[in-house]
Amino acid sequence: MQISGNLLIGQRSVRGSHGEIRAIDPTHGATLEPVFGGAAYADLDEACALAAQAFDTYRETSLAKRSAFLEAIADNVLELGDTLIARCMSETGLPRARIEGERARTVGQLRMFAALVREGDFLGVRIDPAMPERQPMPRVDLRLRHIALGPVGVFGASNFPLAFSVAGGDTASALAAGCPVVVKAHSAHPGTSELVGRAIQRAVHDCGMPEGTFSLLFDSGLEIGQALVNDARIKAVGFTGSRRGGTALMGIAAARAEPIPVYAEMSSINPVLLFPQALSTRAESIAREFAAALTMGSGQFCTNPGLILAVEGPELERFIAAATAALTDTQASPMLTPDIHRAYETGVERMAVHPDVVTLLRGSSDALHGGRPALFATNAEAFRRASELHDEIFGASSLIVRCPDLATMRALLERLDGQLTVALHIDENDHADAQTFVRTIERRAGRIVVNGFGTGVEVGHAMVHGGPYPATSNGGSSSVGSLAIKRFLRPVSYQDMPEALLPDALKTTNPLSLNRRMDGKLQLRR
Amino acid sequence: MQISGNLLIGQRSVRGSHGEIRAIDPTHGATLEPVFGGAAYADLDEACALAAQAFDTYRETSLAKRSAFLEAIADNVLELGDTLIARCMSETGLPRARIEGERARTVGQLRMFAALVREGDFLGVRIDPAMPERQPMPRVDLRLRHIALGPVGVFGASNFPLAFSVAGGDTASALAAGCPVVVKAHSAHPGTSELVGRAIQRAVHDCGMPEGTFSLLFDSGLEIGQALVNDARIKAVGFTGSRRGGTALMGIAAARAEPIPVYAEMSSINPVLLFPQALSTRAESIAREFAAALTMGSGQFCTNPGLILAVEGPELERFIAAATAALTDTQASPMLTPDIHRAYETGVERMAVHPDVVTLLRGSSDALHGGRPALFATNAEAFRRASELHDEIFGASSLIVRCPDLATMRALLERLDGQLTVALHIDENDHADAQTFVRTIERRAGRIVVNGFGTGVEVGHAMVHGGPYPATSNGGSSSVGSLAIKRFLRPVSYQDMPEALLPDALKTTNPLSLNRRMDGKLQLRR
Repeated sequence: MQISGNLLIGQRSVRGSHGEIRAIDPTHGATLEPVFGGAAYADLDEACALAAQAFDTYRETSLAKRSAFLEAIADNVLELGDTLIARCMSETGLPRARIEGERARTVGQLRMFAALVREGDFLGVRIDPAMPERQPMPRVDLRLRHIALGPVGVFGASNFPLAFSVAGGDTASALAAGCPVVVKAHSAHPGTSELVGRAIQRAVHDCGMPEGTFSLLFDSGLEIGQALVNDARIKAVGFTGSRRGGTALMGIAAARAEPIPVYAEMSSINPVLLFPQALSTRAESIAREFAAALTMGSGQFCTNPGLILAVEGPELERFIAAATAALTDTQASPMLTPDIHRAYETGVERMAVHPDVVTLLRGSSDALHGGRPALFATNAEAFRRASELHDEIFGASSLIVRCPDLATMRALLERLDGQLTVALHIDENDHADAQTFVRTIERRAGRIVVNGFGTGVEVGHAMVHGGPYPATSNGGSSSVGSLAIKRFLRPVSYQDMPEALLPDALKTTNPLSLNRRMDGKLQLRR
Repeated sequence: MQISGNLLIGQRSVRGSHGEIRAIDPTHGATLEPVFGGAAYADLDEACALAAQAFDTYRETSLAKRSAFLEAIADNVLELGDTLIARCMSETGLPRARIEGERARTVGQLRMFAALVREGDFLGVRIDPAMPERQPMPRVDLRLRHIALGPVGVFGASNFPLAFSVAGGDTASALAAGCPVVVKAHSAHPGTSELVGRAIQRAVHDCGMPEGTFSLLFDSGLEIGQALVNDARIKAVGFTGSRRGGTALMGIAAARAEPIPVYAEMSSINPVLLFPQALSTRAESIAREFAAALTMGSGQFCTNPGLILAVEGPELERFIAAATAALTDTQASPMLTPDIHRAYETGVERMAVHPDVVTLLRGSSDALHGGRPALFATNAEAFRRASELHDEIFGASSLIVRCPDLATMRALLERLDGQLTVALHIDENDHADAQTFVRTIERRAGRIVVNGFGTGVEVGHAMVHGGPYPATSNGGSSSVGSLAIKRFLRPVSYQDMPEALLPDALKTTNPLSLNRRMDGKLQLRR
């Protein structure tokens, strides 16, 4: 498939006239063809108008049809074959195995949502039947289902060109909920975005979905993305990226005539807690796993382990020695974009010159834009005082804080911002100590990982990829896994509505064979 | 029980030193004893400190203990007996039957949440067991439960001195979720608030809950309420009141270093759609029901029917004649406060002098601060043009819009702000027409009522008391019914956590006997 550099507005392919976007191959520094045209306001207006127009029809497509549509997107993405893999490798500098793995994840995600839609539990059906004889007042008949929120604006992420981008988790969950989607592609991988966008566009057509179900825009600056959040027809936003970007969108959304929710997944340093017994028995193996987790994908994960808290002493020094050795052996691969690389180097440099920080390691790299790993150390008192040491450095950099004791470790954790993940490394003899940390950790993170690292986010039903602000804009949500669909739904209650007018999901005869909550009690389908 | 005029900070009763609050008996215009002392910042600080301190303990109380605590609050409220009823009548001017009904609702609400907590479905337990053999990568063990969000600030509402106030739906659902609560009482009913507050305070003590589980503050101005929303220890806010008040709190919450959700239930005009066949067969009986719904409690309900849309013609004129007659016979009762009465009169006056509006009726009243019913009419074109006619007038005022046809009716509905309720009056022969409205109504309202009115909000599992902005600040939520608990929860995921460290709700053996989602499939308890 030829990459055109065009916007995808509904079923049309339109040349953007507002500036240009060019992809860069970070591995070689070369500019890639073709040139992409940036969307003008008129293009955005058209995409949003189509989405609004599609909404009522799309949200009420049958569960079977919507499910088949998600499957078709997955199939079409796979069908792009090596064209997609090659382009994505060029645009990101990520190795083939990673891109293939991410494609599998993206396709798996779409299929998970397809299954979820087919099954229908997400509708959250509740029926409180009428009680005409109730005293002192008869009870009305009340039935509740969840409907889609409205058209959703999705911002592609730089670091997951497939899984958190055009057909990524935000798009998949919004489409599953019944929301049309307008994607603002990330400028770092426009070719990948167009290819995937065409896969969705074709599925919309082939499955008979309304035209406005999906559009894809490129933005030569920031204006179109901002205008997308500001468009009255957009009812929610999904975003994965920097804290600055996310909070800017939150501000725009809150200032609208009709404020809307922004689901932004932003920044996290993912504290790792090393407990004494675990360190004593296996400092070296934890260190090797840590080094692998830190440098995987040049550390360009929101769940990257950017902070280590442990009690000072010879065991911790064993860990440091082993981690430093493992990281020294790591060959740095290119970062996603020259800008990201520059920001990483700046962050690392700021850390290196901090008066209370000791540089343990700066890795080396022959690669252009190589994300050389960095390891630093400081003490608990300095870390407590200097909140700038709590900031995320996006890339393979981590800071070790030597704590005098476990109580100090816990106190430091208590002062941290909200996190996506907190990891504990413990042995059985650490359980009692770890138990005293659990309540604190729960308050500070969306996911607690034992004897592992936050990297590797399983797409499932029990996953939370979220966490208190500023890890996300909304600590009550998850942007990965089946829970993610809840972000794009709202409950509607139907009082005394005649069977003929009720949506199928709420009819007494249960034609969709749904699990339902009758008078508050769960009843499984037969 | 003597009313002291004191703040309730944890288990203490403290004289507020920051200004004074005095209740007024709206029926007689008399000032009521005692004087209430307003909270100073130090009092707020202490209440929030206690709440934060209580949080980890309170949220992890067993389901049985927390459930018993909610039951104890209900019992204690009932035990206040006629002291509560009499004081509440004096402070609100509402009749005994209404206050007793509201007490029953409040107690019922607390017991519903007690049952909900005991049963445990709100924890939303999900388990995705490990798959060590999975290719290409083993799957980790992931378990998810919902935990309480943190201390919640609750603002009492003027119009429901019991059901949406100190021990109302916001407090009950927050306490059920495991959140300590700091209430800012509404100044219109401080004595009622103190009595109910003491009922909760005693339950905290008797049930062995941590002291900071509940505090009650009075505010002599707006500063303490605003500071409550701004306090870093408060993690969510529940509010029922005006659009101006709600949006002000939303602004404060969004501007915090850590933005938090505000669940504000604000303004709604609750459109009523009269369909041709229904009008033809029973214009008069609908009119009588409408007059009763409009004037109940002097119209001081957020679900009050403030707008009627119907096709012009003799049937609609029959409705108007009958409604006017019924409203003429209605004796207006005093409104809740002199301020509310003043605002109502101003709103009605503004409507009356509007060039495109005809006054059909201004009721009369001998009562002081009597909320005289008002009925107005306009035409579709004027209503479309003049958005000021879409604004809520809090009280027994309603506007009838004569539409040339059903298509115009639907177009007007489409332009309205988000609503708590939309009501349809239909006969079987209207079904086909009504069907063409359903998608629009779903987009604009939280609850669709057929052949009834939005007033009378059933407390159940299938109730949605919510709706798109500005009906509420968050269209994905409900402030009434069991769904309300979701506002105060967030999901946390536990990865590979040893059984010994898992919370009981997530242990493999299921010691709490919970319904669970295993690998995405619902499994009912044995």
